[in-house]
Amino acid sequence: MSDLRFKLTLAYDGTACHGWHSGRSGKGVSDHIEKALAGLFPSAPGLVGSSRTDSGVHALGLVAHFDVPENEVRLPARRLAAALNALLPPEIRILSAARTCQSFHARFGATSKQYRYQVWNHPVMNPLLHQRAWHVPQALDIGKMREAAPCLTGTHDFRAFTSRRDGTLVDSTRTLTRCEIRRSGALLTFILRGDGFLYKMCRGIVGTLVRTGRGQMTPDDVRQLLADPTIRTRGANAPAHGLVLWKVSYRPS
Amino acid sequence: MSDLRFKLTLAYDGTACHGWHSGRSGKGVSDHIEKALAGLFPSAPGLVGSSRTDSGVHALGLVAHFDVPENEVRLPARRLAAALNALLPPEIRILSAARTCQSFHARFGATSKQYRYQVWNHPVMNPLLHQRAWHVPQALDIGKMREAAPCLTGTHDFRAFTSRRDGTLVDSTRTLTRCEIRRSGALLTFILRGDGFLYKMCRGIVGTLVRTGRGQMTPDDVRQLLADPTIRTRGANAPAHGLVLWKVSYRPS
Repeated sequence: MSDLRFKLTLAYDGTACHGWHSGRSGKGVSDHIEKALAGLFPSAPGLVGSSRTDSGVHALGLVAHFDVPENEVRLPARRLAAALNALLPPEIRILSAARTCQSFHARFGATSKQYRYQVWNHPVMNPLLHQRAWHVPQALDIGKMREAAPCLTGTHDFRAFTSRRDGTLVDSTRTLTRCEIRRSGALLTFILRGDGFLYKMCRGIVGTLVRTGRGQMTPDDVRQLLADPTIRTRGANAPAHGLVLWKVSYRPS
Repeated sequence: MSDLRFKLTLAYDGTACHGWHSGRSGKGVSDHIEKALAGLFPSAPGLVGSSRTDSGVHALGLVAHFDVPENEVRLPARRLAAALNALLPPEIRILSAARTCQSFHARFGATSKQYRYQVWNHPVMNPLLHQRAWHVPQALDIGKMREAAPCLTGTHDFRAFTSRRDGTLVDSTRTLTRCEIRRSGALLTFILRGDGFLYKMCRGIVGTLVRTGRGQMTPDDVRQLLADPTIRTRGANAPAHGLVLWKVSYRPS
């Protein structure tokens, strides 16, 4: 009996979830979805996600895959998303579900990922963006931030922007293809796209750009972080709740 | 001793609040703010709001005023917003506070109000817009909705669009100066501006336009509702949680 592979695209509000994979608490997003899968398929398939988001981080386009023995598949793929959503809490939604080939891999097949980060830059927080945006009450020099942002695109050693500094970090070179700051009134949106991201790298980049906007760093300091990755950004990480995993891209099959 | 009048501009997440004024529960937005005012001013001033939003409706620009005996005003007006915010739950934020003249009246002086309503038009709800947008999973004919929307602008008897039909409704003529539908992907934003709105009129208009988009009504039916206001829209009200009181305008003083 051969297995069939399915691809899921999903969204979640990270506020209540203990990240993608929670370990012991059993309250991670993948735990919830695996529980729902077990309700549909006796073999209780395990889920492979494109990204392991931290507690508090949201997603609107995370991709995952799972395998099911062919004889357990009793409902058509087009009804799978609705069947899973009926078993999931409203904070987690399956946007689409489809059969995919065995060579598709949600994690290792990803060619690029896009994250978006929201900052509410006003003396008073917008209560409708609570848990959706980082409140930065101080004035920001957007010109300086936009001068620093493009320095980060390209292939660099991003070691200075990750919080993982132990021996497990073997290769810290990544390619950032987009680093853009949009402004709409008090709302700043950071768009980051790259071939992959180190642990907490997005939050390190946003935190560093906000420090630049506050005059605590210069665009030259940002260049220096890339040139000499032994420098530490020291607590410049932006908080988790402003971050959304927006989209994961794959080579066309 | 003369009184000084202050104008507040405020925002709130209507999810947890029992509307602007709750009556007995004491959990309305105005109850919270009056409690905070009582913490700053011994005379415990009462608050006059521009609009009495329903339970679940949000605000990003509601205006209110209150009077305080001159001898109780011990902090400068520019620090009043921060002092009130320190006493308020994070769901309610004072955006600005300023001295105003005695002739200013938050309710009777308003010349126009703008509301915005969000609809998430996709088979699956966006979990990041929970309690912020109405989920309409069915396909909508935006062209038909945009054909109907401008019929509503101008001065009309909007009796068909309100839920208050008892003898208290004396004058149901209002002037709508803007009725626009913006689309960005699955997100529809309705922009409604007028000199005033009847009870649940915004939600009646949005509900009616969504019914038009679903093919349950035609743009001609919408015109008919204005021509013959004895017709009832019958349960066409859009739910409260998609609605935001966006801005209240006054004559320059």
